[in-house]
Amino acid sequence: MTERTIQDEWPEEASYCWGCGKNNTHGLQLKSYWQDEETVATFVPKTYHLAFPGILNGGIIATLIDCHATGTANAIAHKTSGADQVMHVTASLKVKFLKPTPLDKPVTLRAKVKEIDENKTVLFCSLYSGDTVCATGEVTTVGVDLKMFVKDDVDESRILGVK
Amino acid sequence: MTERTIQDEWPEEASYCWGCGKNNTHGLQLKSYWQDEETVATFVPKTYHLAFPGILNGGIIATLIDCHATGTANAIAHKTSGADQVMHVTASLKVKFLKPTPLDKPVTLRAKVKEIDENKTVLFCSLYSGDTVCATGEVTTVGVDLKMFVKDDVDESRILGVK
Repeated sequence: MTERTIQDEWPEEASYCWGCGKNNTHGLQLKSYWQDEETVATFVPKTYHLAFPGILNGGIIATLIDCHATGTANAIAHKTSGADQVMHVTASLKVKFLKPTPLDKPVTLRAKVKEIDENKTVLFCSLYSGDTVCATGEVTTVGVDLKMFVKDDVDESRILGVK
Repeated sequence: MTERTIQDEWPEEASYCWGCGKNNTHGLQLKSYWQDEETVATFVPKTYHLAFPGILNGGIIATLIDCHATGTANAIAHKTSGADQVMHVTASLKVKFLKPTPLDKPVTLRAKVKEIDENKTVLFCSLYSGDTVCATGEVTTVGVDLKMFVKDDVDESRILGVK
């Protein structure tokens, strides 16, 4: 693992995503790392991220899988093409919930590329509690022009000021 | 629309879901209603529920679709069988993101049953911004014994006390 996260490479104004933006202090702030050919992230749920008492919420799981996979797709796009102006966004997300995920332990996400072409990446992601795979996901991302979404004039006080 | 929400029918101790539990004050508190043969819910995003500035986060969208559809499956299960001891949980979730969803407007969810059998329900759910469908979802739920997940001894202060 490197010390620098995948999300650290993004422009500041693209770092407000509720799932993985380091600048979104109300969000999950997921941090992903390369580990050989796959990416890994660990997330410690809050006590209120539940579905039922003791069980991690499925929407939180879907968010983690989505952000971890999309972050991976972006990292690959930038590694392989150096295309700073292209950003991958999620076109579709499929999640299978295999087992209840304990709320009181960290979860680990591992993602790998399944298919890749010029403008589309399909990734497979597993979510573990300890050594147990509790959910799996397939995420398809497409590359879009970064300028479609990311503007220079981010009003941080508006984003973060309202609870 | 009736005044009473689908989620209002659930036991108090099953009402802490981060996406739709009325007792989870840190959560999205989605509220779903019957409207003829479909269910409808409206959600007003917080300013920090973004993917990019001005665009609603995909994980929040996935959560809303999941909770609205699963709530619908539970309402149907209880209507048709009166089975208070069975609870439907999500087995799989597929979301297609068709268009960027504006963050500064309410979104509306509409769900319908696609397939149903004794212990499984497949639902189709659309998420609208105004009249535009921005995302669609297919959610498969399965019925499990309510007692698997819902205990009487919910420690609310532990769930809600930690930010």
